[in-house]
Amino acid sequence: MVGGGPGAFIGEVHRKAARLDGEYELVCGSFSSDPKKSAQTGDELGLDEGRVYATWEEMLSKEKALPADKRMQVLSIVTPNHLHFAPSKAALEAGFHVICDKPLAFDLKEGRELEAVVKKSGKVFALTHNYTGYPMIKQARHLVAGGSLGKVMKVLVEYPQGWLLKEIEKDGQKQASWRTDPKKAGASCCMGDIGTHCENLAGYVTGLELESISADLSSFRSGRKLDDDGSVLIRYKGGAKGVLHASQISFGEENGLNIRVYCEKGRIAWKQELPTLLLVQKEGEPPMTMTPGNDYLCEAAKRAGRIPPGHPEAFLEAFANIYVNAAKTIRKIDAGQKPDEYDLDFPTVLDGVKGLAFIDAVVKNGFDDATKWTKV
Amino acid sequence: MVGGGPGAFIGEVHRKAARLDGEYELVCGSFSSDPKKSAQTGDELGLDEGRVYATWEEMLSKEKALPADKRMQVLSIVTPNHLHFAPSKAALEAGFHVICDKPLAFDLKEGRELEAVVKKSGKVFALTHNYTGYPMIKQARHLVAGGSLGKVMKVLVEYPQGWLLKEIEKDGQKQASWRTDPKKAGASCCMGDIGTHCENLAGYVTGLELESISADLSSFRSGRKLDDDGSVLIRYKGGAKGVLHASQISFGEENGLNIRVYCEKGRIAWKQELPTLLLVQKEGEPPMTMTPGNDYLCEAAKRAGRIPPGHPEAFLEAFANIYVNAAKTIRKIDAGQKPDEYDLDFPTVLDGVKGLAFIDAVVKNGFDDATKWTKV
Amino acid sequence: MVGGGPGAFIGEVHRKAARLDGEYELVCGSFSSDPKKSAQTGDELGLDEGRVYATWEEMLSKEKALPADKRMQVLSIVTPNHLHFAPSKAALEAGFHVICDKPLAFDLKEGRELEAVVKKSGKVFALTHNYTGYPMIKQARHLVAGGSLGKVMKVLVEYPQGWLLKEIEKDGQKQASWRTDPKKAGASCCMGDIGTHCENLAGYVTGLELESISADLSSFRSGRKLDDDGSVLIRYKGGAKGVLHASQISFGEENGLNIRVYCEKGRIAWKQELPTLLLVQKEGEPPMTMTPGNDYLCEAAKRAGRIPPGHPEAFLEAFANIYVNAAKTIRKIDAGQKPDEYDLDFPTVLDGVKGLAFIDAVVKNGFDDATKWTKV
Amino acid sequence: MVGGGPGAFIGEVHRKAARLDGEYELVCGSFSSDPKKSAQTGDELGLDEGRVYATWEEMLSKEKALPADKRMQVLSIVTPNHLHFAPSKAALEAGFHVICDKPLAFDLKEGRELEAVVKKSGKVFALTHNYTGYPMIKQARHLVAGGSLGKVMKVLVEYPQGWLLKEIEKDGQKQASWRTDPKKAGASCCMGDIGTHCENLAGYVTGLELESISADLSSFRSGRKLDDDGSVLIRYKGGAKGVLHASQISFGEENGLNIRVYCEKGRIAWKQELPTLLLVQKEGEPPMTMTPGNDYLCEAAKRAGRIPPGHPEAFLEAFANIYVNAAKTIRKIDAGQKPDEYDLDFPTVLDGVKGLAFIDAVVKNGFDDATKWTKV
Repeated sequence: MVGGGPGAFIGEVHRKAARLDGEYELVCGSFSSDPKKSAQTGDELGLDEGRVYATWEEMLSKEKALPADKRMQVLSIVTPNHLHFAPSKAALEAGFHVICDKPLAFDLKEGRELEAVVKKSGKVFALTHNYTGYPMIKQARHLVAGGSLGKVMKVLVEYPQGWLLKEIEKDGQKQASWRTDPKKAGASCCMGDIGTHCENLAGYVTGLELESISADLSSFRSGRKLDDDGSVLIRYKGGAKGVLHASQISFGEENGLNIRVYCEKGRIAWKQELPTLLLVQKEGEPPMTMTPGNDYLCEAAKRAGRIPPGHPEAFLEAFANIYVNAAKTIRKIDAGQKPDEYDLDFPTVLDGVKGLAFIDAVVKNGFDDATKWTKV
Repeated sequence: MVGGGPGAFIGEVHRKAARLDGEYELVCGSFSSDPKKSAQTGDELGLDEGRVYATWEEMLSKEKALPADKRMQVLSIVTPNHLHFAPSKAALEAGFHVICDKPLAFDLKEGRELEAVVKKSGKVFALTHNYTGYPMIKQARHLVAGGSLGKVMKVLVEYPQGWLLKEIEKDGQKQASWRTDPKKAGASCCMGDIGTHCENLAGYVTGLELESISADLSSFRSGRKLDDDGSVLIRYKGGAKGVLHASQISFGEENGLNIRVYCEKGRIAWKQELPTLLLVQKEGEPPMTMTPGNDYLCEAAKRAGRIPPGHPEAFLEAFANIYVNAAKTIRKIDAGQKPDEYDLDFPTVLDGVKGLAFIDAVVKNGFDDATKWTKV
Repeated sequence: MVGGGPGAFIGEVHRKAARLDGEYELVCGSFSSDPKKSAQTGDELGLDEGRVYATWEEMLSKEKALPADKRMQVLSIVTPNHLHFAPSKAALEAGFHVICDKPLAFDLKEGRELEAVVKKSGKVFALTHNYTGYPMIKQARHLVAGGSLGKVMKVLVEYPQGWLLKEIEKDGQKQASWRTDPKKAGASCCMGDIGTHCENLAGYVTGLELESISADLSSFRSGRKLDDDGSVLIRYKGGAKGVLHASQISFGEENGLNIRVYCEKGRIAWKQELPTLLLVQKEGEPPMTMTPGNDYLCEAAKRAGRIPPGHPEAFLEAFANIYVNAAKTIRKIDAGQKPDEYDLDFPTVLDGVKGLAFIDAVVKNGFDDATKWTKV
Repeated sequence: MVGGGPGAFIGEVHRKAARLDGEYELVCGSFSSDPKKSAQTGDELGLDEGRVYATWEEMLSKEKALPADKRMQVLSIVTPNHLHFAPSKAALEAGFHVICDKPLAFDLKEGRELEAVVKKSGKVFALTHNYTGYPMIKQARHLVAGGSLGKVMKVLVEYPQGWLLKEIEKDGQKQASWRTDPKKAGASCCMGDIGTHCENLAGYVTGLELESISADLSSFRSGRKLDDDGSVLIRYKGGAKGVLHASQISFGEENGLNIRVYCEKGRIAWKQELPTLLLVQKEGEPPMTMTPGNDYLCEAAKRAGRIPPGHPEAFLEAFANIYVNAAKTIRKIDAGQKPDEYDLDFPTVLDGVKGLAFIDAVVKNGFDDATKWTKV
């Protein structure tokens, strides 16, 4: 693991997700740019001292030097955005599989380069767009793909949060500091951090490709160099329309990712904060509420659950589903076998490149103050 | 009453709303452009045959000729959009008060003329933007206006419906036929019919004025000359941002008007289909659910309810609240008294002009296929 | 109308319900045992002074003396429980139809006598167990009766309120005073006032008959002579089981009547405070949410709605449905025609007798402190 | 671990819960009464072959013989009810800590004996009444205990399930087979399996002690020797009343445990299937919805969460909270330190004895067909 030292949020999420199903064992790490902090985290996690490294470069070279049955098999990258590309590239080229937090890289250029590196390496690259790990999202995707709901006409996808309403980056809050810093986060704060989850989720569920967008980004806090709120009108290839909005300044919202898809002959709706409920409506019928663990679900949704109906699984389990599927794929690849469609059901470098293209377009379009507006 | 004959929807809604609280008595009408149908409706309603008229022009002239204590006091106009202006103008000029369905008129030009007519007449003109009649909407307005939630930052207002997903206007469905006909509906179907309810509701709750908009309107059905779906990015005067979308082709949606307002120190959220629930959240507190009839509500919300907490009131009661307040105002005006702020709490010709300006801007902007879009 | 003077709650509810659909006209009344108050209410309602009476006895004799086309056709009785029997009996015997608030009478003995009076009179007697007027309750009844859900196994019906948590009867609150007074309310406060709504609603939806009950009634306030809370285990004829509880001391509850029915092959669930939502689940399917106004509903549910899907109707409209159906029945009976099953869909004297039998059994059983309890 | 072999449900739940936070390592097991199946499970879990045992007796004796730093520290018991007592007693007497699934033992006699064994052993005994592990339940307990809601007056606790509606025990379904078998489950199926969760949850949240109960148990399926449904009227010490019902034959219900507590000055309500939402209402205020991860929560609720607000945690995390707190306590006990109140926040043998006393009383009372019933 690279990153995930003291004060980190997503690093421990990755560790719990990896642990839950017993498919991974954490064997080494470079948890912080500060070697003392890295050592402290390694100690707390009960790691062998000799495998807690001062830098990720050191980790890659020393681990590579270990015998094959001893060395690290997969590298988890849980650092801020500007530190995704370099360790990903180096690890892949050194022959390790990679599981990387999103967004894929600092910008679209890096992303495209990494796409080529992954292809060349033959290694597994999993991107933790974790919300696609929820069982009911897999069921939603299945329903849309199956065609019984008809062609998609309209997509509404939202991700409101309120945690950056106050300028907590000024108080040194670690999560806020790097996300609002263009040198670490890239060209966008809100759209890069959570807008891409919207884009990815809508793409996963509907299978639609973006054609063009028209956006309005805002920095509600004067000191901020990056957006903390944004709304995007979407035209999809094939004629569907969409509205996507994400916000980090929406008072009281916790982690309100949600999606509604309207088709010719049906609809689905889902909210991340109540992830076990999938509203589905089909022609001539009242809306239904599907829940995990039931016989009527598709195979992918069934596999994404662990316990019987009514015993809710949630964020960590969905996150773990990315890890589990990556593990199954890695194991088969390493054994020279062919992973099946269920093993391969996790986000890849291609999803990452799409996300960076989305950020790129939205940032270009979203601060336009003139040509697209009509006075009322 | 003008309009509201066989096959009409909103005419009977107006009649029930007027009847509920015993403040109105229906005394005459011209219910259809077809005199036979008008007579039939008059008969069903138990009206005196002599006061069921073939045309609204006849009604106005004959009613005016009656003694003051016998003649109609207020004219309800429940016709399609193209028949709002002429009877409104004529009735006001003949000395009658008017209650008119929305939108105010066929286009902005007519609307502005009517504004002048109302001002000159000294008569009461009430516009049935009925959703502002709900008690919890009055409470929402009170909370925002009171300032304890802080400045408004972001407004999300939606009105999804699905009833025009199929081209039922081709089967002669009366409601669909005139709304999709540019000669009767005006420049817009979806935005004119329900988008304006969004605009009006957001304005009522937040007190904000539109500065500029950027929109995407669609006609999902090839034969349709007017929009059946639209999304609008909004910049409000003072810096708040908004997203407004309305749709008549959203599968399964019934009448899903809803609003969320995010402020500096709080938020509110409300859905028309469950109108007794108002989510309110204030700084440092969990979200609360306010309901009608309770002591903690503001005076306007209390007056808008009839029965104790837990005995739900809904659409017709909210509609009736427009009628009740108009009645109180009319009675005081006619008695030479001054209505108070609660009496005057109903939409007026000014709200109607704002709505038409909104439609005008959105239609101009919303079919732009070029300058405001960025390819992804 | 008898009752419904100043400070009354249910009287004005009856008046609004009667007014809504234009099927009734209020022509006379004896609104209070205090003739001045009666006159005041009559004046507020715009009644002819000569038809506002000092007593109901006077009203009945004077109205009977009027010509048939002038006199009152139906008597609404909206007084406390001890004043249901006498005016009902007298009105029926004088040839008037009667619409009476529940419970039917002061006790079971009175109820049985009234049953005989109704039968002999040939007149219509409607009892306002108003919750059966909701469209979705009619749909629930239809689904259970249709048999597709299979045999009913378990019924849960609840009616929590909180308004008597404080002893407001001591402050002279009119509604609380008579309901907690054994001379006016009868043998029970909570079970008589709202427990009977549970019993009636469960019977209407399931068609089941009570076999035996085991209950625990409480007076949480020491000064109270009647129950303010009670829970009842039910054994229905045919083997189904039930749990019924009602409370007037449940903090924060407004008017939380709700019912869940579990059958062999399906279930339904409904809550009065969100009356437009009916949960229905059938074998092999996820739960559905049915809403009013839709094509998939039964005829009785459709007739019980006035406006399209998504335009919610609520308490007053459900109450009005009792009035509407009674009106249709009365009109046909008076015209020598036969009412159909939809006209006759309102609670009758038989439902009233069942309710009184329920109260009788529950009060007898519910204060038992010994034989049925096991120490833990 | 004892139990948790092929076909088991709760064994894998225990393993995931133990794994999630990295506080436990599974080192040995006797997973099935069939040594082959035990070996198979051990193999799947990657255990050292030499530490997969044919019987729990063998495991205890061999593990005890290992050096202190190698041997098992805690025994997890995840077998059917009739196999809780013997391994618990033996393990405690051999010096191991024990984490045991509920109910505590086969009957009250065994339970009381085990209580003495635990006391004598000085070892930690944790009982996985897992629903008390939810953060919002800890908050509910805190609110009631804090006194600001006032004295508890009424408790409603329900646990409807539908999985035994069909007699799946006849098809050999493992979970159903032992639960409906008096030799393995004890005196009760429904009340023992899930009624005790109700009893435990209500006790944990309210702190109330049962005084006496009056119950109605049913076996809806003629072949069943034990109850599959039951309803219980409760009188608590101090005057509060309660209604508890649990069912395994309620069509469509998945795992619907829920609780409502009404106090003098407030109330709480919670549903296990949407475990992140806690309804709380205080005097003079609208109901609030509390959610995990927020500053306004009590210390115990905060400690029971892992990730920020809006990132839902659910069943497995709540289960893991029992394991985590037990781990912290065990570690301190073994180090001669004193665990604090947060460490000790897990169910113990005392809770287990209370549960068995509840089952005992309910089974005695619940099949009474005569003395406590009144005919209607």
